[in-house]
Amino acid sequence: MGNRTVSDKWAALDQNDPLGSMRDKFHIPDGVIYLDGNSLGCLPRAAVTRMKDVVAVEWGNSLIRGWNDHNWIDMPVSVGNKIGRLIGAALGTVVAADSTSVNLTKALSAALQMRPDRKVILSDRGNFPADLYIAQGIARVFGPEYKLKLVEPEDVESALDETVAVMMITQVDYRTGRMHDMAQLTKRAHNVGAVALWDLAHSAGAVPVDVSATQIDLAVGCGYKYLNGGPGAPAFVYVRPDLQANIEPFLSGWMGHAAPFDFDLDYRPSEGIGRMTVGTPPILGLSALDAALDVWDDVDMGEVRAKSIGLCDLFIAEVEARCGKFGLHLASPRDSARRGSQISFHCPNGYAVMQALISEGVIGDFRQPDVIRFGFTPLYIGYGDVGRAAMILERVLVQELWRNPSFQTRAKVT
Amino acid sequence: MGNRTVSDKWAALDQNDPLGSMRDKFHIPDGVIYLDGNSLGCLPRAAVTRMKDVVAVEWGNSLIRGWNDHNWIDMPVSVGNKIGRLIGAALGTVVAADSTSVNLTKALSAALQMRPDRKVILSDRGNFPADLYIAQGIARVFGPEYKLKLVEPEDVESALDETVAVMMITQVDYRTGRMHDMAQLTKRAHNVGAVALWDLAHSAGAVPVDVSATQIDLAVGCGYKYLNGGPGAPAFVYVRPDLQANIEPFLSGWMGHAAPFDFDLDYRPSEGIGRMTVGTPPILGLSALDAALDVWDDVDMGEVRAKSIGLCDLFIAEVEARCGKFGLHLASPRDSARRGSQISFHCPNGYAVMQALISEGVIGDFRQPDVIRFGFTPLYIGYGDVGRAAMILERVLVQELWRNPSFQTRAKVT
Repeated sequence: MGNRTVSDKWAALDQNDPLGSMRDKFHIPDGVIYLDGNSLGCLPRAAVTRMKDVVAVEWGNSLIRGWNDHNWIDMPVSVGNKIGRLIGAALGTVVAADSTSVNLTKALSAALQMRPDRKVILSDRGNFPADLYIAQGIARVFGPEYKLKLVEPEDVESALDETVAVMMITQVDYRTGRMHDMAQLTKRAHNVGAVALWDLAHSAGAVPVDVSATQIDLAVGCGYKYLNGGPGAPAFVYVRPDLQANIEPFLSGWMGHAAPFDFDLDYRPSEGIGRMTVGTPPILGLSALDAALDVWDDVDMGEVRAKSIGLCDLFIAEVEARCGKFGLHLASPRDSARRGSQISFHCPNGYAVMQALISEGVIGDFRQPDVIRFGFTPLYIGYGDVGRAAMILERVLVQELWRNPSFQTRAKVT
Repeated sequence: MGNRTVSDKWAALDQNDPLGSMRDKFHIPDGVIYLDGNSLGCLPRAAVTRMKDVVAVEWGNSLIRGWNDHNWIDMPVSVGNKIGRLIGAALGTVVAADSTSVNLTKALSAALQMRPDRKVILSDRGNFPADLYIAQGIARVFGPEYKLKLVEPEDVESALDETVAVMMITQVDYRTGRMHDMAQLTKRAHNVGAVALWDLAHSAGAVPVDVSATQIDLAVGCGYKYLNGGPGAPAFVYVRPDLQANIEPFLSGWMGHAAPFDFDLDYRPSEGIGRMTVGTPPILGLSALDAALDVWDDVDMGEVRAKSIGLCDLFIAEVEARCGKFGLHLASPRDSARRGSQISFHCPNGYAVMQALISEGVIGDFRQPDVIRFGFTPLYIGYGDVGRAAMILERVLVQELWRNPSFQTRAKVT
């Protein structure tokens, strides 16, 4: 099949894409095929006008009155509710605040206090290292009897036993896209009396998640990946409704106080999810995230998932057909049910290949030791983008082959 | 002296003000005299263009490349250095990140780990309650032997003894502006072997601070008050250079890792101040704060202090002369050396008075039980503003007197 013929096929897929019109809601830079929305989502056009407004009008003219007049004070919960809709959370169970790491600190410390008789945090070696660092810090401050136990991703289920206080798992592996079964692992965790704490950084907005149906206890996630909230956007934290009255966030901040403006000298946590907030809400970042979330108003997560699988399967097929001879092989699960919205390949000389690819306008990223990684955001990536990205990757690999004879050797033996 | 004559006097003061031209660098809403910069600073005009640029150009076009191309990754330290200049800190000793409460969590937990044999956090009842809440949460997680001991502000020095692990003090009282002597209390704390941890929320940009000369150990502070970084701006944390290699932030986040992009499974803190960062930096908020800090480039803190005292003394004199008969009395120290850049009065029916004053365009705020509070930001407030604010307060009090007979009674007896 010639390139013209396949590009006609991709165009047909794009024409029949029920999410095709969403792309216009984003600014995509000229000459770029952006396959890194799993690191930083594209700019929603609505965020441009919203940021202009929040700076010039809300901050500039309302000043301190903005906390009431523009409902700034409610934004952690109101923005949290918009995120909640994408992960199956009830109203009043999510707040948007702080970074993922700080939210994990709140959630993990609260989870450990729910099981004071147990001392093991169970996680896996595929977790994002940042989460492991936070757990190591918390274990240290909780005391020498606390341990972070790491197993291989496929061994989490068998490692769950009655010593485990908290199962702390990132659903989608940041390198390969491998996806844990949230319902199954949560059920198993609950069977042994462990708290189920999930990091949805690469899930929220990428795959359908239902925190209510799966009955997970706590979750955290990221605002700047598939939610497109901007660089370093506020993150989020979820607490199951029946747990909210009893959790004790040891990050006891004034925004989580039952009556912050009474200025009592003693901390008294607010009812409900509010107690998961700490300091003064970051209104500029929350406003960009808020505008970015409005893009999802008419989006069906089932359609997002179907298109995500379509894009990923097309990318695998095109890359394997065009680039397999260069020694690339799939690092992600081939079974779409077992992965999120990203595809990775082991690639000889991967760092240089990704640099060359970026200079050709196809933006993905590289992860040690040899992984080239591509994220597929169905709201603004089309089938034509995916097909063209595979063609450009092939061209880059041919160039690398000529430029770097050692690549050729390694490519053959890999 | 008639109102015309005094207003000529104020105009003369404004004409001779060496900081007078700074006002043009801010957007001041029409019809507003803004005396609440101690809660949320005015919008620097430079922040408007900077925010437009960071959204449309840096995020929109550079996308993930912005972390390198626009030095986003360095912003916690580069913005921290700009704050450092205002508080006498050396380069590489301040980071801008997270909220004040989260930074206090880092600083206080690090401070306690510097004195593992001691269990007392000493603070005072004039501290901002948010700081006390954080200390209560940390004491709880560190263990039942840890105590937060609160004394009256004037008793801090005598309460310092060899049981105290950390003296945790906010320099300027959020209600009255009363200012602790940083050099003296720090010296006394060090004499008994306690760590000196200061909250500079109402100090940074308001009064000259020299964290180096006073040899304080750790400090935190706020980005949205006198630094004008916008609503919920990132806060900051300072660590004395000789302590940086040994402190152990238990909020061990990936941005504080020695090599975050190696994705090691084990936390290893970076050299230097970087270990006080945790999650991905909030680039939108940091950009506004960064632009706001550039306003200070040619500002001399000695001139800021001199004008601040001039504004505050004028306000006291005008309010006492015009409004003393309504039962107002000064809640702030009369001695300018003992206060920051704000003035408070006890005021009968203070809540209603402040609401009426705000509706007349003079924005201050109310703090329980009866305090009306006015902040004076020398960069954008002039002597004429201060004088007119006192005149409008007098008019509001006259109106309240007619409107509310009970006010009259209370005003007479107070």
